[in-house]
Amino acid sequence: MTFMENDPQKIATYTYELEPAEGNAQQETPLTLLVKRILETATYHAESWGVGYSSLIKGNQAWVLARLAVEMISYPRVYDKYVIETWIEGYNKHFSARNFCFRSPEGKIYGYARSIWSVIDIQSRASVDITTFRHIANNVSDKDCPIAPQSKIRPVNDENPAVYVVQYGDIDINRHVNSVKYIEHMLDKFPLDLYDKNFVRRFEINYVSEARYGNCLHFYREQLAEKIYAVEIRNESGDAICRGRIEFAERDREKI
Amino acid sequence: MTFMENDPQKIATYTYELEPAEGNAQQETPLTLLVKRILETATYHAESWGVGYSSLIKGNQAWVLARLAVEMISYPRVYDKYVIETWIEGYNKHFSARNFCFRSPEGKIYGYARSIWSVIDIQSRASVDITTFRHIANNVSDKDCPIAPQSKIRPVNDENPAVYVVQYGDIDINRHVNSVKYIEHMLDKFPLDLYDKNFVRRFEINYVSEARYGNCLHFYREQLAEKIYAVEIRNESGDAICRGRIEFAERDREKI
Repeated sequence: MTFMENDPQKIATYTYELEPAEGNAQQETPLTLLVKRILETATYHAESWGVGYSSLIKGNQAWVLARLAVEMISYPRVYDKYVIETWIEGYNKHFSARNFCFRSPEGKIYGYARSIWSVIDIQSRASVDITTFRHIANNVSDKDCPIAPQSKIRPVNDENPAVYVVQYGDIDINRHVNSVKYIEHMLDKFPLDLYDKNFVRRFEINYVSEARYGNCLHFYREQLAEKIYAVEIRNESGDAICRGRIEFAERDREKI
Repeated sequence: MTFMENDPQKIATYTYELEPAEGNAQQETPLTLLVKRILETATYHAESWGVGYSSLIKGNQAWVLARLAVEMISYPRVYDKYVIETWIEGYNKHFSARNFCFRSPEGKIYGYARSIWSVIDIQSRASVDITTFRHIANNVSDKDCPIAPQSKIRPVNDENPAVYVVQYGDIDINRHVNSVKYIEHMLDKFPLDLYDKNFVRRFEINYVSEARYGNCLHFYREQLAEKIYAVEIRNESGDAICRGRIEFAERDREKI
């Protein structure tokens, strides 16, 4: 359930509750659901000042998510209410930086996220100059987002990549694989037991190119350090589709 | 986004909007999202009169979905608002029948659904007598649900079943495969092209037993008639997990 603020404002606030049917095996908000909420609240906020999907599509333009970093202290549990605050940190011709804070209604911080977006012309795939958007200069907030910026994730080595053929349920309204589905498939490359003992403390993804229905995706996985992994998805031609970095942290033992 | 009615009432009404990031390849509400909304609104309504998840779990009890049938004339498209009405049609000791109507705010009918639920004791897995629930007798509505009841789906023959190993993202808060994930995997057994030319007019599922993390699921698929298929999911021991029936109908040619 969501309660939306109606007035356009620099920091938009949306409240959700984790329903039982949405919880994961650890009875927490799945990271994939959190990213869905990130996309959703970004859309709501952009709509509120006239640059959302519904406005841009009329000019054959669309927002494209380029990079995302999510860093969590803990995740909302079943029946926990959680508040998402989102604001624009800055922008230039090619990119807009939008941040997120996840907290309880009482102010307990769950975590933060940073996202980098571009706007493209859907036909030509050319980048659209974001600085020409009306109101954008008035919508930048200096609210603090105390997590490290997105990093550039390097190509990943793996001699035995897992293979997955893109299915009907992976495809979004643009006929590409849904941004969240890449994350779901990446996270599925790790065993349940790892999630029971650890939580995803930081997750990053760089979107490089698009996968389509029927593409045969290869998942390259490499351990970078203790509890830190990189996963690269490539298509059948070896082109990078996206690269993720997953950092696990041990759960408090007393909490289990 | 949801607007909930707060007062308990026989027919509960919840309003949603299809966000761009939620749409499928046909720019419509995915059947899987519709089923999520079915589970969610059933939970909201049960909570409103004190027999929701949060109340039952205190007595180690839980609602279990046994059967579902969804029949659609059309699906809400991106930015369409849709209203879900839900009500209890009847109940006996072992089962409660809950129905759903999907419509636009203006009253255009998208479709209907019928669901059959039981309540179990989580430890003993024994059925709990639903007739002992307070208020249930006052919460039955005689609103019409003009679709055929759920059918019992027979075992499915297939000499070459597809195989899928249950992943982390499939698992729900009870450590079983999420009810919606079975449906997603079933629908993924059909090609995108079929969904471009047709829509799912009627979908039924019977839940028989539970699959767990790491189970190797076999998908048996059989064509029953033109555009009508049955899919049965069995575990590695050959036990039925669930059985689905999918009826496609051709899209209006002028709409494509």
